[in-house]
Amino acid sequence: MNKGELLYEGKAKRLYATDDAEVLFVEYKDSATAFNGEKKQDIDGKGNLNNQITTRIFEKLREAGIVSHFVKRISDNEQLVRKVDIIPIEVVVRNIAAGSLAKRLGYEEGTPLERTIVEFYYKDDNLGDPHITTEHIDILGIATAEEVDALYKQALAVNDVLQPIFEQVGVQLIDFKLEFGRDVDGNVLLADEISPDTCRLWDAKTKQKLDKDVFRRDLGSLTEVYEIILEKLGGK
Amino acid sequence: MNKGELLYEGKAKRLYATDDAEVLFVEYKDSATAFNGEKKQDIDGKGNLNNQITTRIFEKLREAGIVSHFVKRISDNEQLVRKVDIIPIEVVVRNIAAGSLAKRLGYEEGTPLERTIVEFYYKDDNLGDPHITTEHIDILGIATAEEVDALYKQALAVNDVLQPIFEQVGVQLIDFKLEFGRDVDGNVLLADEISPDTCRLWDAKTKQKLDKDVFRRDLGSLTEVYEIILEKLGGK
Ligand SMILES: Nc1ncnc2c1ncn2[C@@H]1O[C@H](COP(=O)(O)OP(=O)(O)OP(=O)(O)O)[C@@H](O)[C@H]1O
Ligand SMILES: Nc1ncnc2c1ncn2[C@@H]1O[C@H](COP(=O)(O)OP(=O)(O)OP(=O)(O)O)[C@@H](O)[C@H]1O
Ligand SMILES: [Mg+2]
Ligand SMILES: [Mg+2]
Repeated sequence: MNKGELLYEGKAKRLYATDDAEVLFVEYKDSATAFNGEKKQDIDGKGNLNNQITTRIFEKLREAGIVSHFVKRISDNEQLVRKVDIIPIEVVVRNIAAGSLAKRLGYEEGTPLERTIVEFYYKDDNLGDPHITTEHIDILGIATAEEVDALYKQALAVNDVLQPIFEQVGVQLIDFKLEFGRDVDGNVLLADEISPDTCRLWDAKTKQKLDKDVFRRDLGSLTEVYEIILEKLGGK
Repeated sequence: MNKGELLYEGKAKRLYATDDAEVLFVEYKDSATAFNGEKKQDIDGKGNLNNQITTRIFEKLREAGIVSHFVKRISDNEQLVRKVDIIPIEVVVRNIAAGSLAKRLGYEEGTPLERTIVEFYYKDDNLGDPHITTEHIDILGIATAEEVDALYKQALAVNDVLQPIFEQVGVQLIDFKLEFGRDVDGNVLLADEISPDTCRLWDAKTKQKLDKDVFRRDLGSLTEVYEIILEKLGGK
């Protein structure tokens, strides 16, 4: 598969065309960003780690019967994925209070929630990715009611698979963000990445943060904790 | 009915006990506040106007079969209401984009929404009344699913009654905020006030703002536009 034209450069990844119109080349960058791009740093080895971790997670999901855009990893920092039309909604699943939820609703970080919840955010950098409901999605016209239903169900299914996988290796899956797209047939397909950039992962015993909060809050070496996650997932 | 002990002093009203444990005395204050109390001003005649406007609106709702806490107006700035246990959720109904919705989702103010939407905000001044979903209500334990259903349905019913009433007098009901409580039998009962403090009301032709945005945005005399609303509702 040849790497074609650069189609999009985001904060964490570059997307390239391939010979196959339905397949994209994804290159993971050595770049960490937070607070809608306000905080930024190049971090050697980050792209490599996230490419490997995302790969392992999408493979584990596939084994559990959850399909995604993921095709295969093809180098240290590259993978092939099926091209989708990204639905501009960030789907957040939360098991334990942390981050913006804790702050907004007055929970102490680490408080287990009564139940797992699913939140939607409008993926729009200019608006700062505002929190939205199904009714906002409806008036914005960014997804149909059936698609929202699919987002919701698939997000919970991902949680049901990933939570025990992390639990088995002593890691709490606090919360995570998913993106979905429409494939060529118009079906809702899990896309983007699932990595410590997009999940909150805590050591179940020590509560050490093993995710991008290390970068957001200057808690130490990001690659050191990402390596811990990769190893726990059977990598390296 | 005697005015008893002062039970609560809010930004816009004072609540007093009466001889009847199930009935409260509400006194409307001559005070305007905005931005969670940051902006503040005493405005002569405001309490009087809001007491009269709220009265007329609750009476019109009653005629249309929608019950509320409202018992009767007993003086220029006082009314009797049935005491409820306030559910800490602000229920916002929106017909046309304005205020925080317009800002958050990137709509131009005045854009009609595809459909009427209902939003929930957690009534908590310390948290700044954050926007919440039914799932947040669930984990916070502040209302049951049945109560949320009642809030939702009653809010839309209020809109269905008020929208044509305002339309007939050349006023657009852009959006409004409701509060509900539990009565002695545990039923969800419409409470608080419905006035230009809690509604956005625009002159349908000129688009002049006839509500608290006049104070929020320094657009002129608040009492002048509240008087217009009172007159349009058949008062004075
Ligand atoms: N299978 C896919 N097909 C098409 N686009 C995809 C696919 N998977 C992910 N994307 C999109 O590719 C981009 C990945 O780049 P990156 O994660 O660096 O973006 P970003 O900086 O987070 O910015 P944004 O997500 O706001 O565009 C994202 O826009 C993501 O939505
Ligand atoms: N029928 C009722 N029984 C008991 N409390 C009520 C009733 N109707 C309204 N209230 C409550 O009375 C108070 C009215 O005061 P006011 O509107 O000035 O409060 P506020 O400044 O808006 O502050 P807050 O609403 O945050 O308490 C509100 O707390 C409101 O929820
Ligand atoms: Mg991204
Ligand atoms: Mg009030």
